Amino acid sequence: MSKLDQLVQALKENEADAAWISHPINIFYFTGYKSDPHERLFALLVRKEGEPILFCPQLEVEEVKNSPFEGQIIGYLDTENPFDKHPNHYDKLLIEESHLTVQRYHALKEAFGTKTFAPIDQTIKQLRNVKTDDEIKALAEAAHLADKCMEIGKAFLKEGVTEREVVNHIENEIKHYGVSEMSFDTMVLFGDHAAAPHGTPGDRKLKNDEYVLFDLGVIYNHYCSDITRTIPFGNPDQKAQEIYQIVLQAETEAIELIQPGVKISDLDRKARGIIENAGFGEYFPHRLGHGLGLEAHEYQDISHTNDHLLEAGMVLTIEPGIYVPGVAGVRIEDDILVTENGHVRLSNYPK
Amino acid sequence: MSKLDQLVQALKENEADAAWISHPINIFYFTGYKSDPHERLFALLVRKEGEPILFCPQLEVEEVKNSPFEGQIIGYLDTENPFDKHPNHYDKLLIEESHLTVQRYHALKEAFGTKTFAPIDQTIKQLRNVKTDDEIKALAEAAHLADKCMEIGKAFLKEGVTEREVVNHIENEIKHYGVSEMSFDTMVLFGDHAAAPHGTPGDRKLKNDEYVLFDLGVIYNHYCSDITRTIPFGNPDQKAQEIYQIVLQAETEAIELIQPGVKISDLDRKARGIIENAGFGEYFPHRLGHGLGLEAHEYQDISHTNDHLLEAGMVLTIEPGIYVPGVAGVRIEDDILVTENGHVRLSNYPK
Repeated sequence: MSKLDQLVQALKENEADAAWISHPINIFYFTGYKSDPHERLFALLVRKEGEPILFCPQLEVEEVKNSPFEGQIIGYLDTENPFDKHPNHYDKLLIEESHLTVQRYHALKEAFGTKTFAPIDQTIKQLRNVKTDDEIKALAEAAHLADKCMEIGKAFLKEGVTEREVVNHIENEIKHYGVSEMSFDTMVLFGDHAAAPHGTPGDRKLKNDEYVLFDLGVIYNHYCSDITRTIPFGNPDQKAQEIYQIVLQAETEAIELIQPGVKISDLDRKARGIIENAGFGEYFPHRLGHGLGLEAHEYQDISHTNDHLLEAGMVLTIEPGIYVPGVAGVRIEDDILVTENGHVRLSNYPK
Repeated sequence: MSKLDQLVQALKENEADAAWISHPINIFYFTGYKSDPHERLFALLVRKEGEPILFCPQLEVEEVKNSPFEGQIIGYLDTENPFDKHPNHYDKLLIEESHLTVQRYHALKEAFGTKTFAPIDQTIKQLRNVKTDDEIKALAEAAHLADKCMEIGKAFLKEGVTEREVVNHIENEIKHYGVSEMSFDTMVLFGDHAAAPHGTPGDRKLKNDEYVLFDLGVIYNHYCSDITRTIPFGNPDQKAQEIYQIVLQAETEAIELIQPGVKISDLDRKARGIIENAGFGEYFPHRLGHGLGLEAHEYQDISHTNDHLLEAGMVLTIEPGIYVPGVAGVRIEDDILVTENGHVRLSNYPK
């Protein structure tokens, strides 16, 4: 069943007449057409009966026609009210409550005479949670390109280089591999600077015998990667190396657990247990990971409070870390696909 | 009257009990505290009576205490419902309808038993429209730093350099002047590439005798600049130079009109008239400019449909352009402060 068919299915289950999708990433998910005309109206109306309708600025109509979207297109000029071009009534409408503004909500009520609104947010999260084969291909390539960024970054390390210079070098060089956008601001932090919870790459210069933390990802064909490596430049001190080994063990053992049917919270508990037993529990202040797809952080939370079960087709990050101020900050993160029989690691840069 | 007092005044005029401000930039505007905890609740409750209340994640409470904000602070943990900590009733609540999500709207209704909601959007736009002396100081410094970016960029031009390399050089070098963030993605486009409506800096190499278009700005002390210069590298051809002179004349004459009481649409008409009379009307497809402040594009629109009057304290951009495919793209943009008796140009890089 296509993604749009699954949405129509959800309409029927909710006894709703239509769904109004306005989050640009969700619109891309269902139509294959990407845009973000900001305050201008851009929305996908999916109906119980009849083909879906995409509302967009008139300027974009030709681009939509050239996209994979096969439904009706309603283009409008800035001087026109888009709703005038579709004078229909929808009694019950599903909306993305966590995205739709109150302003648009009032506009929908007036335009469609809608009496009942209900949220479609969770349904879409669940659809996006399980990836199709095409999505997995894109995610695997995005992870592969993140590995390439690591290679580029490592080769550029030398005494005296600044964090910011390494970031720029990576972001410039990876363009030659067809990457036009990173999935978030590339982070490169040296030594104990990596122990700052919200470290930003700056003018700090690399010294011998410290760790370098890289947290980076690219967007390939709209899909994101997000990996972290902490690699030695020379011989970091004993304490930092011990921390590295603990994080590596926590990451490795959490990943080993991954297969359909496993409780997500058990992954977090496994990694956290290893770090706590080594006496560093208080230095691992964040969740173990998150879902990965069209967004670098998406549903689901890989945390100790999430008791949902892993399913084949999910793609997630596992990223334990230990941050000891004045000593070292170490995080290791991989992108993992849950398969029918276990898992496949999409990111492969050495650890 | 302080900004917060003006908001309380608006509450009284609207016979409302309180205003719920949730747009992070508006919260900064009223409190001097900047944050964006994304899906976590972060909001300022301004009441008709009593001090304002800032709701924020518990982790941020100390930072808020160190900020200029002087009201009550309600911190909450991820496991707590922030509304439980302020069990009050507000019958009529003003909200930012163009920002608040339906999800939060429902939460407010339930938490505060609110019966009537009304928009506060336009009131805040009007407050932010007229800048205080401190805001003007920051905007002037931001414009000055944008001039510096132009200097840096121009000095780096040489045959064969790519657009992307010039962008990176500017963004790296300006950091030495204390700039940590540009106000939008820096644009550097060479020759006829500048005539593409949505040009993105890429691997195009600079050749002799073409124009280089720079559109850039920085954030200084939270305030933005946004300037454009189109400068010759060698001797661009006659046609391109003619276009340059027309744009310069249009920009200069529109700026000369600026003083309190002038209709905003008249500025657009003046510039557009000059370009139309020269036969390039169809190649100037956008508005003349926009407001500038905490955001690079903010209220008001400087367009032919805006009949509001200029007021002292407004800061706006004037940016006419002519884009002839295959020939040249020229735009010139300055940041202008409206003063009691006329105007002051905040950006001063030569034209």
